[in-house]
Amino acid sequence: MLLRLRKDLSANDLELFLALARELGYQCRFLDASRQIAELAGPERIQDRSRLEDCCAVVSILDPGAARERALRGPKQADTQIEVGGARFGGGSVSLIGGPCAVEEYTRLLEIARAVKASGATCLRGGAFKPRTSPYSYQGTRRAGLEMLAKVREETGLAIVTECLDPRDAEAIAEVADMIQIGARNMDNAALLTEVGRTKKPVLLKRGFMSTLRELLLAAEYVLDAGNEQVILCERGIRSFDSSTRNVLDLGAVAALKRSTHLPVVVDPSHAAGRRDLVRDLARASLAVGADGLLIEVHSAPAEALSDGAQAVSPEEFAQIAQDAAGLCALFGRQLAGGLAARAANPQPVSKDVQRTKRARGAP
Amino acid sequence: MLLRLRKDLSANDLELFLALARELGYQCRFLDASRQIAELAGPERIQDRSRLEDCCAVVSILDPGAARERALRGPKQADTQIEVGGARFGGGSVSLIGGPCAVEEYTRLLEIARAVKASGATCLRGGAFKPRTSPYSYQGTRRAGLEMLAKVREETGLAIVTECLDPRDAEAIAEVADMIQIGARNMDNAALLTEVGRTKKPVLLKRGFMSTLRELLLAAEYVLDAGNEQVILCERGIRSFDSSTRNVLDLGAVAALKRSTHLPVVVDPSHAAGRRDLVRDLARASLAVGADGLLIEVHSAPAEALSDGAQAVSPEEFAQIAQDAAGLCALFGRQLAGGLAARAANPQPVSKDVQRTKRARGAP
Amino acid sequence: MLLRLRKDLSANDLELFLALARELGYQCRFLDASRQIAELAGPERIQDRSRLEDCCAVVSILDPGAARERALRGPKQADTQIEVGGARFGGGSVSLIGGPCAVEEYTRLLEIARAVKASGATCLRGGAFKPRTSPYSYQGTRRAGLEMLAKVREETGLAIVTECLDPRDAEAIAEVADMIQIGARNMDNAALLTEVGRTKKPVLLKRGFMSTLRELLLAAEYVLDAGNEQVILCERGIRSFDSSTRNVLDLGAVAALKRSTHLPVVVDPSHAAGRRDLVRDLARASLAVGADGLLIEVHSAPAEALSDGAQAVSPEEFAQIAQDAAGLCALFGRQLAGGLAARAANPQPVSKDVQRTKRARGAP
Amino acid sequence: MLLRLRKDLSANDLELFLALARELGYQCRFLDASRQIAELAGPERIQDRSRLEDCCAVVSILDPGAARERALRGPKQADTQIEVGGARFGGGSVSLIGGPCAVEEYTRLLEIARAVKASGATCLRGGAFKPRTSPYSYQGTRRAGLEMLAKVREETGLAIVTECLDPRDAEAIAEVADMIQIGARNMDNAALLTEVGRTKKPVLLKRGFMSTLRELLLAAEYVLDAGNEQVILCERGIRSFDSSTRNVLDLGAVAALKRSTHLPVVVDPSHAAGRRDLVRDLARASLAVGADGLLIEVHSAPAEALSDGAQAVSPEEFAQIAQDAAGLCALFGRQLAGGLAARAANPQPVSKDVQRTKRARGAP
Repeated sequence: MLLRLRKDLSANDLELFLALARELGYQCRFLDASRQIAELAGPERIQDRSRLEDCCAVVSILDPGAARERALRGPKQADTQIEVGGARFGGGSVSLIGGPCAVEEYTRLLEIARAVKASGATCLRGGAFKPRTSPYSYQGTRRAGLEMLAKVREETGLAIVTECLDPRDAEAIAEVADMIQIGARNMDNAALLTEVGRTKKPVLLKRGFMSTLRELLLAAEYVLDAGNEQVILCERGIRSFDSSTRNVLDLGAVAALKRSTHLPVVVDPSHAAGRRDLVRDLARASLAVGADGLLIEVHSAPAEALSDGAQAVSPEEFAQIAQDAAGLCALFGRQLAGGLAARAANPQPVSKDVQRTKRARGAP
Repeated sequence: MLLRLRKDLSANDLELFLALARELGYQCRFLDASRQIAELAGPERIQDRSRLEDCCAVVSILDPGAARERALRGPKQADTQIEVGGARFGGGSVSLIGGPCAVEEYTRLLEIARAVKASGATCLRGGAFKPRTSPYSYQGTRRAGLEMLAKVREETGLAIVTECLDPRDAEAIAEVADMIQIGARNMDNAALLTEVGRTKKPVLLKRGFMSTLRELLLAAEYVLDAGNEQVILCERGIRSFDSSTRNVLDLGAVAALKRSTHLPVVVDPSHAAGRRDLVRDLARASLAVGADGLLIEVHSAPAEALSDGAQAVSPEEFAQIAQDAAGLCALFGRQLAGGLAARAANPQPVSKDVQRTKRARGAP
Repeated sequence: MLLRLRKDLSANDLELFLALARELGYQCRFLDASRQIAELAGPERIQDRSRLEDCCAVVSILDPGAARERALRGPKQADTQIEVGGARFGGGSVSLIGGPCAVEEYTRLLEIARAVKASGATCLRGGAFKPRTSPYSYQGTRRAGLEMLAKVREETGLAIVTECLDPRDAEAIAEVADMIQIGARNMDNAALLTEVGRTKKPVLLKRGFMSTLRELLLAAEYVLDAGNEQVILCERGIRSFDSSTRNVLDLGAVAALKRSTHLPVVVDPSHAAGRRDLVRDLARASLAVGADGLLIEVHSAPAEALSDGAQAVSPEEFAQIAQDAAGLCALFGRQLAGGLAARAANPQPVSKDVQRTKRARGAP
Repeated sequence: MLLRLRKDLSANDLELFLALARELGYQCRFLDASRQIAELAGPERIQDRSRLEDCCAVVSILDPGAARERALRGPKQADTQIEVGGARFGGGSVSLIGGPCAVEEYTRLLEIARAVKASGATCLRGGAFKPRTSPYSYQGTRRAGLEMLAKVREETGLAIVTECLDPRDAEAIAEVADMIQIGARNMDNAALLTEVGRTKKPVLLKRGFMSTLRELLLAAEYVLDAGNEQVILCERGIRSFDSSTRNVLDLGAVAALKRSTHLPVVVDPSHAAGRRDLVRDLARASLAVGADGLLIEVHSAPAEALSDGAQAVSPEEFAQIAQDAAGLCALFGRQLAGGLAARAANPQPVSKDVQRTKRARGAP
């Protein structure tokens, strides 16, 4: 491990750093005369990087060596593939998640679920518990919403993705959900991450709109460290200074994550755009950059939605997005879960040429 | 109330908007031919603004009229003053909160507490539960830490400010804390805000490092709406693109908040700077801009701190900050809690001249 | 035109606003009792929006009506298509621009130009004048570089795209360039925009890395207002808080711009990524979102480049990007300039090329 | 000098790095086995850091050693103090610059100039050439404005600070200006920086609203490298995500700059706030944090201002700001240029003036 230390360390501060290194089982060697660069030889355990970063004497870890957290891709490590019902994420597989922002009314929910399934979605999203900026905003149907989701799964066979906001709800949600969502506002909520991790259900972890990729990976680490290997990361836009879109969808982050982690990465273009008319274009871009799936807000009567109606696409637009997904997966040699790939392979000459260009990310 | 609607509303979307307005008890009149501006006449209840903002047809509320949330300052409304032990925040009163980032060891904690008290602090800060980005970082002494804080309060009489991270801990923390801190990472954690609100203890609510002022005020609203009137807002720096400081301290936000809300606003220059050598200068600026208090990390052996040691000032530096505070309060006609103001009034000619310039913010 | 005025206007401020409205030829009517919403009836000339926005009484223009600047798309207005040599941008046509960051040495430049042309590029990019953060960095070959570019055009037939940094150089650059680039750092440089506008050459206008879309469109307006209709906008990444990529490529901005302006929009994924390994994925995403072209840094020996070598792709990687472009244009029904679309219909070479390029992500 | 290299350097890339190091006269030694840390021994000239940073093999300079640019403070180097007419900036001296955003009309300009002088300003600011986002906005009185400024200087003795936007205007402006301002939008405009540097007039260099401190210092380096030692840096707010203020005033940057550079640093709270009611509070904070001066927009009839009227304070408010400055300079042991410090020592007028200015925040 290679560390950069503060330039002006007092003898006392230096001694404290050396004591910590010893305590962790490392031998320390300074590489330069001014003692700014330290090389630690020793066990290189997963947790050591964080311990050393917390030390006041350390500016940064220049090279963590093998003290690499669980979420990080090791040399030649293949993609982790995660299955959720009929959905498969990662390792060349792409899946579509569609559904309303909030679970409001059973008939409407079932209607939307049937529509997205018909277009090729394998998962239904829908919030029973809603994170809202204002206490006066609609807060969700809560337990009743969970029951509706369970019934719709029975009817349609779609896997259920729903959000958990409070560690005290984790167990109840895990009984219904096939995948538990951690929202962007809760990415830093360690108590929640740990509790959700304990349920052993797949976790869809959204990047905070103000979080670095390292922070996102360390949030995933809370779940992984709770013994739950099934984490899917989700880019959903970061906050910026322009108001043309609600957030800035950071697709460079998706490309960078695919290299630095073995976990699947999906994209939520709906929250990034915040406006219906851009969702399809951003969905295309997300799959083109290499995302392992899409999370799309769909509503059959957006104006009636009690939250985020402005960004929900219609079932018809979702069908177009699914068709785009089929074309892009064919073009780039990836498998679209849910049988749509076959359909797309049918009429289109594009897919033939490029089927041979299949390649594995993260695998030789 | 004055609203801006989407330009291209369908007849159906328009009807849904009108139905919502009716449901809330408003009469709607369109002011322009293109129906982009709607004037609502009716009850103007606190919660209506959020309900209408959620409606898909509404772009924004141009003028909320009296549908103003509890945290907002009404016409000619005076400052809310909050007392925490011997501390007083707001309405011309300024108080100092000092202490370590984390509660680690009793003797050290007591030493620091005595030092900050001697300099004029009226509150001791110290985290027993620590919010950490990495699961492998030091997570705090937890319940044992709370006990140490309780003992130190007995010894010193300082009021205790400590953070709550998990709604399940709120009650236990409320037994010890004189003021409960909500950290920046949890500003959006509604479950936590509500639970802490229910304890009826004063709440120190830190602004998220990428939160707008409206979002901060709506987070406060969760506490106020739980029946707890005692909320102190805290600016602690926002995230930006330059790494010279850990965060960018947004003192314009403090000035803007003092106008838009009646709640006290304090500043944490330690987290903003992230480096010890800038804390004193930023503390001066914070009081000069009109903050009602300071939250300062103090450690008697920063290199031994298990978290954030790089930004903790020594007890000696804290004493200088307190002295600056006395001078600035005298200059700008404010009261420094804890008896320091008197001491400062003694030798310094500055304070005499300006004692007459006292003025009330928010009060005529 | 619909305007929002400040709530607390004095009689005098109000009179000054009314005088301005009259001077511009408008009749003003207040729509609400509090005089916050004003409707102006009158000529609605292009320049009136800016004049009114500058007025201290005006908060914002809610609806500019027909006082819409030249860059904005009018109702049902078609795309502007711009031809630069054999390249065509906009209106369903896509073109590729490739080349080195800086023009350094003739033989190398010719080698790169031939390579990108062989892959289907229709324009060569290369900076003779280089904008550098430090006065001690390499500043470009300047006039000698322009001569090299002119010679390479003669040899290859590629159209030349090169940057102008100083209004005093505009004429000399216009003699050589087929399209003049305005860099991100100069998007706000009105003197330069005007001077380059006067040359009547097509202008490639890069978005500043912290500029809003409205600011970008107003920068284009300086060129359009100088009588030059040929402006191509370029998204190249905005500045943010994460350092995984050099900048955050804002593809939502591309989607939003395609709706709000009739001008072509291209993307520079090289500067956004700042690292070679992400350029191809971001190029795919850029075309998928609807960009009218790509601007790619290509170098045959990146390590020798005197600037930005870390983000330049090899000619082989550029060939892959061009191949991706052909596939994506075919999939989405767009025309790729330079004859590549036809080649893509022919399956054989595609698959062969790409089979050999299989590589493991995360593996050396 | 200590450098960090890319981890995966090819033999060729490594050789090119070594060749560059040799060319610059350095001997290179790798400190670690993986060749990520290189120590260069040799001349350590000012310009070498930039040359090495441009090299594709180099990740960053960990320690520049003595290869420190001219703007950086050397060990124990004292503040540079810059005199402009009767103003003195740096080294414990503080000066006030006041005046309108734009020079519009002679009588008004003279009125404002006399008012700010009476309050203790030593410099008059006023733009003859105006940088505007829109080509349709008011562009300034240009040469006529320069003549007005020259006449007002004759009348009042105030030093003149005015902006240069175009390298072709530098000479004409230098004939009138006592200090030439480079605006935030032009901080990266190297051609302009060099031309203004050549005039040998003091330069007021504003930080770009998207610029890091290192970029600001390298912009200053363009002026210093042109042989002009007189550069004053100016913080004026950075762009962020909240719209409560026009920009976020980054006072931590002021504190950090005072440590890293020997050049004076002043603050422009007017552009940061963008609203008149916050200017005084931010001016207080700026001086409290250690700024060497203030740049304040003042207008005697803000509603008539053709640009930025919303952020201009009245002459009366400027007088209060000047009074605050006197109090803060006295408190923190600094000299306020222009004789105001003396006046502040005299208690009577202070209290009288300010008693009348009592006002309610949040009340009209």
